[in-house]
Amino acid sequence: MTHSSSSALANLGEFGLISRITAGVSPNGNVITGIGDDAAVTALSAGMQLLTSTDMLLEGVHFRRVWHDPYLLGRKSLAVSISDIAAMGGIPRWALLSLALSSDLPLDFIDDFMRGFLAMASENQVSLIGGDTCSSRSGVAISVTIMGEQYPDLIVRRAGAMPDDDIWVTGTLGDAALGLKLADDVGFGFTPSTEISIQNQGSPHTDSSPAGVEGGMQPLLSRLLDPNPRVLVGLALAEAGVATSMIDVSDGIVADYGHIAEQSGVGGRIFLEDLPLSRSFRSYTASFPAIPYQMALSGGEDYELCFTADRSNREKIVDCVEKCGIAVTRIGIVTSFSGVTVVKPDGTPYSFQTEGFNHFT
Amino acid sequence: MTHSSSSALANLGEFGLISRITAGVSPNGNVITGIGDDAAVTALSAGMQLLTSTDMLLEGVHFRRVWHDPYLLGRKSLAVSISDIAAMGGIPRWALLSLALSSDLPLDFIDDFMRGFLAMASENQVSLIGGDTCSSRSGVAISVTIMGEQYPDLIVRRAGAMPDDDIWVTGTLGDAALGLKLADDVGFGFTPSTEISIQNQGSPHTDSSPAGVEGGMQPLLSRLLDPNPRVLVGLALAEAGVATSMIDVSDGIVADYGHIAEQSGVGGRIFLEDLPLSRSFRSYTASFPAIPYQMALSGGEDYELCFTADRSNREKIVDCVEKCGIAVTRIGIVTSFSGVTVVKPDGTPYSFQTEGFNHFT
Repeated sequence: MTHSSSSALANLGEFGLISRITAGVSPNGNVITGIGDDAAVTALSAGMQLLTSTDMLLEGVHFRRVWHDPYLLGRKSLAVSISDIAAMGGIPRWALLSLALSSDLPLDFIDDFMRGFLAMASENQVSLIGGDTCSSRSGVAISVTIMGEQYPDLIVRRAGAMPDDDIWVTGTLGDAALGLKLADDVGFGFTPSTEISIQNQGSPHTDSSPAGVEGGMQPLLSRLLDPNPRVLVGLALAEAGVATSMIDVSDGIVADYGHIAEQSGVGGRIFLEDLPLSRSFRSYTASFPAIPYQMALSGGEDYELCFTADRSNREKIVDCVEKCGIAVTRIGIVTSFSGVTVVKPDGTPYSFQTEGFNHFT
Repeated sequence: MTHSSSSALANLGEFGLISRITAGVSPNGNVITGIGDDAAVTALSAGMQLLTSTDMLLEGVHFRRVWHDPYLLGRKSLAVSISDIAAMGGIPRWALLSLALSSDLPLDFIDDFMRGFLAMASENQVSLIGGDTCSSRSGVAISVTIMGEQYPDLIVRRAGAMPDDDIWVTGTLGDAALGLKLADDVGFGFTPSTEISIQNQGSPHTDSSPAGVEGGMQPLLSRLLDPNPRVLVGLALAEAGVATSMIDVSDGIVADYGHIAEQSGVGGRIFLEDLPLSRSFRSYTASFPAIPYQMALSGGEDYELCFTADRSNREKIVDCVEKCGIAVTRIGIVTSFSGVTVVKPDGTPYSFQTEGFNHFT
């Protein structure tokens, strides 16, 4: 789609909008009846069960239009839902998208958003099969439902962690939280391209990046604005049958492992110095008085997978995750007693202020 | 749930809210893993395909809090989605519910909303299996996804109408549109009970109902505020194999039959005097200069089923729909040439101003 028009929704109307949104949707073998009927019709693969999750994203709450270029917002809207299917070890298949839009919204915003949404869909072999559009009087609201499938025996749930299991996490933690903090401190906006462009709002001569920081803020902002759901890792772990429990890290590792612990009737110890921090994270925070571990522990929006597994499977796990091109790190052990504690190398508990976002408080 | 507290969401927090919402959800045989994991797990019945649809409802656009008592709003939020499954001849099974709520919203609102939502779910054997909650800075936003199932051969689509088929509609048309007009004219509000209570905003001695109107505004308002999805009728028609196409009437019969016509590559003639009008509709509009047919043609929110069928199936259809306790009326015929026209008894076209709501214009 290369619509250059910036005219507003009001000229297009509801059905014009739907045509515009669906113009980029290509038919797919796993869809029987897609967009355009009262309900979509699809079929599960033989022997598989249905996995379903839904997320709502609101302007001013989950995203700010000045920060999120619409292409990346489209990608992220679907990525966070796909991440839930990854966390079950499932195969993402179909998505529904509802959009509430204010009538003065530029059409370019919608075109770019859809381009991003459909790119993320295509990268994960997900088909957009339906949705809803309506007018909003107060900012953009996005609702995404994702459906996936998997054989019953391979589905990995939050419940299932056993005492003495290892606690593992993919990739690195805290990058998105640090990216958010830097964006907040520095102030930046986007050019209407798919590239992230950092604009210092102060003097053009001020570069707020510490001298010599490799890649600058870019990798941290990418983690915040363009998360990559760990579908292949989730699938590899499910197929290897090694994860006793799994969750995606959206609210910070402490809170999210906490859900595993609660639903498995166990607790856990997380080793502070084993938390995987990216090179960008380390170099950006090198001048801080202390490493801001709280961002890795509770910052949220990492969209990595946290899982537990028997100690006997360590080699198998490293093998199976790294084959997907993703690092994996043992960060703790499951305990039989309840409660999740973060411990310092000297064995004493590490206390920190939660960075995570809690709605309604 | 009989929480009497009116304290606000801010005291409860996100996880408290989720507990409160899910407190009324009862486990169900057709759910393998419900609320509380990264994704819900369900299984389709052997041989059936998956039907999926989603709807978004926004305060100030789809509903006004002063009109919709939260119990009825909860019912309607799910009812409009279930209606989409009914329109495919499907069996509704599972629902996802996302709620964006402002932090000063009284907890009673949420409790009553959920009571209504879960009552509608239970009446239709639908299980709530997941969702999302978040804070809103500007009114309530509701997103519902419904999933259902049906055997491939029984699913009824919009495409399939054949020239010379009859056009049928269940129940009566225009009641909700008239109810909306009356509510707009008269002004009314709700007591915090599940009963609709009409409060004239002018003098308490003024009764705006025409003298002798049977049941007053009540039946018309009920159609507007508490629609009843035609699941049993949809299923009966699917199982009888008699409907060549089907849609639910949410935007008015002309627009919705128009979708059937377009997708079937046909047109249609709708006979004005055959439109099914309720007794309440007729008696309420008896003093009008003319019958406001435009409400029945384009008012929207009827949530009846419009379908087409071969003439040879007339008796079978009356039988099969009336067995469900719902009236059914032949209102037109499918034409081989495109375009939908409404014709008067003298055969000339009836022209009318559209009442329907088009987002963004």
